[in-house]
Amino acid sequence: MNRQMIIASIITIGDELLIGQVVDTNSAWIAQELNKIGVWVKRRISVGDNKDDIRKALDEESRGANIILMTGGLGPTADDITKPILCEYFGGKMIVNEEVLNHVKFLFEKVYRRPGAILEVNLKQAEVPDVCQVLHNARGTAPGMWFEKGEKVFVSMPGVPHEMKGLMQEKVLPRLKEHFVMPAIVHQTVLTAGAGESMVADRLKHWEAALPAHIKLAYLPNYGMVRLRLTAFGQDKNKLEAELESQLVQLKPLLADWFVIDEDLTMPQVVGKKLKERKQTTATAESCTGGYIAHLLTQDAGASSNYKGSVVCYDNEVKIDVLNVDRKTIEEFGAVSEPVVVQMVKGALDALKTDYAIATSGIMGPDGGTEKKPVGMVWVAVGNKEKIITREFQFRFDRLRNIELTAMNALNLLRKFIDEESKGPIL
Amino acid sequence: MNRQMIIASIITIGDELLIGQVVDTNSAWIAQELNKIGVWVKRRISVGDNKDDIRKALDEESRGANIILMTGGLGPTADDITKPILCEYFGGKMIVNEEVLNHVKFLFEKVYRRPGAILEVNLKQAEVPDVCQVLHNARGTAPGMWFEKGEKVFVSMPGVPHEMKGLMQEKVLPRLKEHFVMPAIVHQTVLTAGAGESMVADRLKHWEAALPAHIKLAYLPNYGMVRLRLTAFGQDKNKLEAELESQLVQLKPLLADWFVIDEDLTMPQVVGKKLKERKQTTATAESCTGGYIAHLLTQDAGASSNYKGSVVCYDNEVKIDVLNVDRKTIEEFGAVSEPVVVQMVKGALDALKTDYAIATSGIMGPDGGTEKKPVGMVWVAVGNKEKIITREFQFRFDRLRNIELTAMNALNLLRKFIDEESKGPIL
Repeated sequence: MNRQMIIASIITIGDELLIGQVVDTNSAWIAQELNKIGVWVKRRISVGDNKDDIRKALDEESRGANIILMTGGLGPTADDITKPILCEYFGGKMIVNEEVLNHVKFLFEKVYRRPGAILEVNLKQAEVPDVCQVLHNARGTAPGMWFEKGEKVFVSMPGVPHEMKGLMQEKVLPRLKEHFVMPAIVHQTVLTAGAGESMVADRLKHWEAALPAHIKLAYLPNYGMVRLRLTAFGQDKNKLEAELESQLVQLKPLLADWFVIDEDLTMPQVVGKKLKERKQTTATAESCTGGYIAHLLTQDAGASSNYKGSVVCYDNEVKIDVLNVDRKTIEEFGAVSEPVVVQMVKGALDALKTDYAIATSGIMGPDGGTEKKPVGMVWVAVGNKEKIITREFQFRFDRLRNIELTAMNALNLLRKFIDEESKGPIL
Repeated sequence: MNRQMIIASIITIGDELLIGQVVDTNSAWIAQELNKIGVWVKRRISVGDNKDDIRKALDEESRGANIILMTGGLGPTADDITKPILCEYFGGKMIVNEEVLNHVKFLFEKVYRRPGAILEVNLKQAEVPDVCQVLHNARGTAPGMWFEKGEKVFVSMPGVPHEMKGLMQEKVLPRLKEHFVMPAIVHQTVLTAGAGESMVADRLKHWEAALPAHIKLAYLPNYGMVRLRLTAFGQDKNKLEAELESQLVQLKPLLADWFVIDEDLTMPQVVGKKLKERKQTTATAESCTGGYIAHLLTQDAGASSNYKGSVVCYDNEVKIDVLNVDRKTIEEFGAVSEPVVVQMVKGALDALKTDYAIATSGIMGPDGGTEKKPVGMVWVAVGNKEKIITREFQFRFDRLRNIELTAMNALNLLRKFIDEESKGPIL
């Protein structure tokens, strides 16, 4: 934390957060966006649709923060608790906002094309405290509300993620930048693969200890990879950028073969970028990952230039029929075996006509393990027409985590294959 | 909230939560598990790796709760902040726990098979306050810690989700059930599809208003579907179950055609269950969903009996080569069109030899939209050898949300197709 930073607190409102049926993805996204403009989130808190708890949260959070962002508690079945509390808290009265009313009607009539479905509760969303500035929510019926109390800013937004994101990007972030004097802030992300958090930290300890106080390092491990995030605070953005640049020059040789890329990209994005640069394509042949690698590669727009598709061969007959895997190989070695994933790569290259292919076959659990092939055992192959490399993994987690780890490690294997190939002969 | 319930508060610790690089999935899972045993989570709070903030959170949360569960702040690079604070807070001193030390060594030597990678920071994880009861963490190096202060229980767990989950299930939940007298609690979930939250709420308003005080109804909308959760609190579990049973009898006819299932299942699980009951299989042919439906259908174990696989045909050539879609049809109508998804269903039925198939083709955004085919436009087809039905959707969200909505609605379409088929002729 840096004393120059503006401090924010996030309050998420809704019983659904406390009974655990909804994972709060809003807070992380808001924190990330605030960080980018130089605002430090000191606390995040979730409370239920309960007057006393919301009021208490407003009191407590406003004590330690300049900015209090709230999401949720505005839905049509939320018993309309949040708005009256805000109205009372900031000493106003409820009025109908004509602009919001027209927008609600417009959405039901023109966008949802269900004018008959408009209900009293929907129209009530046009009622707002007269002490707030209404922030137009283009994506939904509940408007954003901006309150000021002394030096502090309070913003209430709906909890629906895409509505909240739109409001933040179009209204809240620009206004916050106008309202507060923000420090300059610069980030540099480095993705590493091949070592755990403690090993990376150990290798970097002397360099890390020598970092100046205004440069902060965060370790963000996930999927057996570690993302490093350097953040520099100060007044002069150009100077900070130059400082991070020179730190990066020191960092890269320390990381050596663990270094993947010095951009804030995910592993699927790194693979997509490398393929795009080389004007090459890949395909996947997925047994145990069940389409998850395909999903990762198509999650970002623009994948169509480098990703052609996948044969998800969950059933062995699909391996045989579509990927031309030899039935005898499956019978002799089992579906989870090196010869089968090699044939799957060949089959995918033939069927989908790509430069590269990835194949996965493993036992994701919780059932299906044997002594020789325990849960978490996976064979991965990647390659092209000239060469195929394989690797056996043994993961130790629950089913979904094993799927995710297999996918990320398979993509990392393809990344290394492409890198090695562009260097010369493959190891 | 019910006065008979034990109150809990969850504190998640870690700068990574405040810079937004990590979505806190732990809190939702913990809240769900606590709810099941009759514990109500009143607040959730996230603070950074900062002594004052952690101490303040402990003070504040213990005032309003009987149980304070903490996750995170125990990793090898977390600067070892949480443990000394807990030690001081509960008035103890740090000692080496031999059992934990042996377990750390065992993990590095036998499980990770990297004895050379063991570091000072890893060994330090065996140090615990002498005033806690150590909870053995079979899945990782950082142990759980159980503290008691007066009537209140404090538990500290590592933030790695699968480690925390293991500790909760094996150690924390059983101990909490022993320590506190819990009320009887019974849940009944009903999945609906076809109407939004406000429409469902409007249709149920009289029934809902007549619910007794000890039965609570929650609306949990997601992907254009609404999950209803009835929760009954009391002393006598059998009586509560009978009460919910009779409420369900009233509820079903009110929901009519929106009713999907009266179990706590996701839409992919509902489809899997129906196929399994009928000993039938399905396949998917995914363009715009890019393997996401396949991923949803293989996320739970046991899918292999009813799901054979997918052809992810992100590229049109794959539609033509693998699914036998007619090139002229694509040229004439475009890839996002009714005739193409119909041919994709036929192609998937042929290539993957299943009873049913689902096909998707759409424009997920943010680019690629035209006036005639805007972003969010999707064609879905489902069917079997006898009949194929199609539906056009127009979603209005960001890319990932559009993918998710397409997948869920396609699965719902197959569910309806199977239901109608078992009734007789398909509408």
